[in-house]
Amino acid sequence: MTVSKDQKSSAAKSTILSVDAMGGDQGPAAVVAGLSLFAKKDRETRFILHGPSKTLTDLVAKRRNLEGRCTIIDAKGVVTMDDKPSQVVRHGKDTSMWSAIESVRDGTADVAVSCGNTGALMALSMIRLRKLPGVNRPAIAVLWPSRNPQGFNVMLDVGADIRADADDLLRYALMGASYARNGMNLPRPRIGLLNVGTEDHKGRQELKDANELIRDYQGNADFDYVGFVEGGDIQGDIADVIVTDGFTGNVAIKTGEGTAKLIGDLLKEAFKYTILSRIASLLALTSLRRLQKRIDPRGKNGGVFLGLNGTVVKSHGSADALGVAAAITLAAQLSQSQFNSKLAARVAAVLPQEHENIKGDSA
Amino acid sequence: MTVSKDQKSSAAKSTILSVDAMGGDQGPAAVVAGLSLFAKKDRETRFILHGPSKTLTDLVAKRRNLEGRCTIIDAKGVVTMDDKPSQVVRHGKDTSMWSAIESVRDGTADVAVSCGNTGALMALSMIRLRKLPGVNRPAIAVLWPSRNPQGFNVMLDVGADIRADADDLLRYALMGASYARNGMNLPRPRIGLLNVGTEDHKGRQELKDANELIRDYQGNADFDYVGFVEGGDIQGDIADVIVTDGFTGNVAIKTGEGTAKLIGDLLKEAFKYTILSRIASLLALTSLRRLQKRIDPRGKNGGVFLGLNGTVVKSHGSADALGVAAAITLAAQLSQSQFNSKLAARVAAVLPQEHENIKGDSA
Repeated sequence: MTVSKDQKSSAAKSTILSVDAMGGDQGPAAVVAGLSLFAKKDRETRFILHGPSKTLTDLVAKRRNLEGRCTIIDAKGVVTMDDKPSQVVRHGKDTSMWSAIESVRDGTADVAVSCGNTGALMALSMIRLRKLPGVNRPAIAVLWPSRNPQGFNVMLDVGADIRADADDLLRYALMGASYARNGMNLPRPRIGLLNVGTEDHKGRQELKDANELIRDYQGNADFDYVGFVEGGDIQGDIADVIVTDGFTGNVAIKTGEGTAKLIGDLLKEAFKYTILSRIASLLALTSLRRLQKRIDPRGKNGGVFLGLNGTVVKSHGSADALGVAAAITLAAQLSQSQFNSKLAARVAAVLPQEHENIKGDSA
Repeated sequence: MTVSKDQKSSAAKSTILSVDAMGGDQGPAAVVAGLSLFAKKDRETRFILHGPSKTLTDLVAKRRNLEGRCTIIDAKGVVTMDDKPSQVVRHGKDTSMWSAIESVRDGTADVAVSCGNTGALMALSMIRLRKLPGVNRPAIAVLWPSRNPQGFNVMLDVGADIRADADDLLRYALMGASYARNGMNLPRPRIGLLNVGTEDHKGRQELKDANELIRDYQGNADFDYVGFVEGGDIQGDIADVIVTDGFTGNVAIKTGEGTAKLIGDLLKEAFKYTILSRIASLLALTSLRRLQKRIDPRGKNGGVFLGLNGTVVKSHGSADALGVAAAITLAAQLSQSQFNSKLAARVAAVLPQEHENIKGDSA
């Protein structure tokens, strides 16, 4: 597999993305519309589209700017949101999701994109792509609106696994740093470890251990470790990458999204309350739309699976064309920066380092 | 201790609250101003104020409506936000916080209120009041803005302890239900258990065990168990009480607060952006203020320590008069409903139930 990948990276002139056209709430039309949106800005990237070939051929034919840029691979089955991951792994060979992962596995593409069932996508990615050497638990990383100059932070893991030990958390730090460098153009990202307080004595034992591991390791890597951070720092400007276990991360992003949605709804209500406020909402329309765009998850769509032999971008299940385009943009950027081979090198480098430490040589 | 409490509840005609006047960011003036605000609406409740007597006497003298309603207990020491809980427990006997807890311990008051250092307050409460029979881990419960008719949900634990096993989570469910009944007037609260998905097979083992324990127990209690809920349900209308361990709960509330704050700040910026939007913000001022009030934590101030021999209401460290008044209002309501003795009875009832189960009798 590694051989075919190397061959590919040296041979390929243009980026090729593997796209699962099925499994999202809005169906393949939204996915093809998203590709078309992206293709207006990027004229090089090519796509391998996975799904029922008749449907996809018709949809692609309607989009002039996709002409000659899509290879369609026929896959009759669809993974639904209710399918159990274990079932998909055993009986899902005919699905578009499986097929999309396969194009990364065989080295045709570096990055796969899917709007489908997260659990199934993770399970398939794990089984078919396998973990990178040195990675015990892969992670899902998301971008989160923040006060940073770049407008968002990376958080991982947000749900690939429900636990993480200190070694996993160190890997998450390395993978998150790599993602911030290649996906967000931050040469020296700041890493924070999520906890219930910022003092060194706070939190569970694995967090105290990870705190020391990451701090010790920062000399060997191009990131700055800022230590423990709290829930209020996820959208702050103290760190660019927030490291946590998948249970805590999952609850945190869903809490944040739910809070943002509640406030958005209350804001709409507030503006409907009086005639004056209705007029006000008309006057402020542009400003409010700008705000909405700033915090709209569709603008920065795409959770990314890290720690596998290949990168998988998970778009929101409810993504529309705009959401799909955002996920495709991220996938293209990660593919062009040869992100996954850089990440693999980073994580693999931890192993010999640890062996040296055992021998008492901490250079 | 129990004896003196019983004597007190039968003898006392009016509610007496024990108030730590020191340790908040805004000092004793904000606390006394908060008491005065509350006293405008409630003419019965009396206060025991703890702190330097000269300062407090002067502050109280300036508030006409507090005349004859405050007993001042002199305490020279102050617990600062930087003090370590272990230090306060060992050397904090002269502090206003210690003194405030002592008035609950000796049965003079049912409920203590403090704006001080949370860790120290929890440690002192644990050591001086001791845990209720049947409670292994006390919890901190907060009110959270939600889509429920009552406008907010209860969440616990948000940081008393960093872990909780299945038995603790069952106690949290019982304590949270009791709090919702007595603090929010919900006769039959709906309880949800926070997890990373709603299916029964999701999450860590202790969550699966607690899921069964709480489900089995709901027949014996006046609440409805809705099963697993997710981060997006904390501000939803699926459950009235969200049960979780203190690590997850702490990260969740801080993430939610941080997100709300970020959106609030971005909203202010958006309204400053153009002349039209500045005019709009003036027109919408009343509506926006109404929204702010709805989601402002000061309106529902007060984390509550549950599972002790006595109730302790923790107000935000940065609470102003309005925040203090909200915490005092909650404390008064809990005291008047004889919340703590009801809660004690609820939690104690689990013990014989378990013993019966062991004997094979699950009536």
